[in-house]
Amino acid sequence: VRIYGDRRSGNCLKVKLTADVLGIPYAWTEIAVLAGETRTPDFLVMNPAGQVPVVAFDDGRVLAQSNAIIRYLAAGSNLLPSDLFAQAKVDEWLFWEQYSHEPYVAVARYKVSYLGMAIADIDPTLLEKAYGALTHLEAHLNKDDWLANRAPSIADISLAAYTRLALEAGFDFGALPSVKNWLSRCDETFVPRSTNP
Amino acid sequence: VRIYGDRRSGNCLKVKLTADVLGIPYAWTEIAVLAGETRTPDFLVMNPAGQVPVVAFDDGRVLAQSNAIIRYLAAGSNLLPSDLFAQAKVDEWLFWEQYSHEPYVAVARYKVSYLGMAIADIDPTLLEKAYGALTHLEAHLNKDDWLANRAPSIADISLAAYTRLALEAGFDFGALPSVKNWLSRCDETFVPRSTNP
Repeated sequence: VRIYGDRRSGNCLKVKLTADVLGIPYAWTEIAVLAGETRTPDFLVMNPAGQVPVVAFDDGRVLAQSNAIIRYLAAGSNLLPSDLFAQAKVDEWLFWEQYSHEPYVAVARYKVSYLGMAIADIDPTLLEKAYGALTHLEAHLNKDDWLANRAPSIADISLAAYTRLALEAGFDFGALPSVKNWLSRCDETFVPRSTNP
Repeated sequence: VRIYGDRRSGNCLKVKLTADVLGIPYAWTEIAVLAGETRTPDFLVMNPAGQVPVVAFDDGRVLAQSNAIIRYLAAGSNLLPSDLFAQAKVDEWLFWEQYSHEPYVAVARYKVSYLGMAIADIDPTLLEKAYGALTHLEAHLNKDDWLANRAPSIADISLAAYTRLALEAGFDFGALPSVKNWLSRCDETFVPRSTNP
């Protein structure tokens, strides 16, 4: 397996962590998004959507979209339940992440970590939506230790990725104690079994 | 099964079409998004994310997120292949839809169909991204009749929903002949087996 990814991208870190936790050996090819490396002709042949992460299997099959990749890698493991409805409850969070969390939390963090903006200078509407998504997580994590099915899964790996990066970028988590505890719980639970490059 | 949805929402129409094609009987509860009916206390108990569609099963289980719902309903049917990698290729499109298609195509169409804006008055950046997503579909459909695995699946049902609504809202599909042909192909292929309310 070869993972094409940008090490500063939460979407790519989801794939790395899932592979590390499951002990799946891989090679890593660093693709610098800001340098336009997802838009080169060679890259676009591999993924016409021009996005990382992409995983290429040894037989030539290629898979894109972080949540599709981690769902595929986790099949049959303890990171994804075998019951189909329980899987759907994981999917619920994965799709919510892409539509209602990533576009705000990851984009706000991008402006800070990639573009060097001060948090105070971020568009207030974007900031409000980012904190809104985090508050939705907080409300759930006030009641449950984990996002789906009261058990750790790729739903937690997926949602924790950009949530953690937002914390590291200096966003205010003062009103999000359950989210912070959950991030620590994720650290203790999702322990790499393999050390890859 | 009870589907809570707004009949003008592409996300809700995906669920309706999937259930109709599979012959799954259901009751429909109309939830008017613009009237704030996804934000009432009762609705938020059912789906704290405050979004439609939501499906409630007879035993009380509840599932939200259109793509999670149709994936669950389609399991074991000819709308979702049994091979896990083939499923992942369907997922690739489902996640791309939520992050790279819906936020532009559906939002642009919302401004026309819900808010009554003229297409010419839509923010050019939003419009460019919407046509960019449709052009990505066009490039794929120039080479393949279907989105994933060269066979009809919920990937087509999902992507066709807001694509069709954009066509109906008057967006310019002059440069998108393969997309238009694919929409017709979807109409011929995804034929309701049951007629529900």
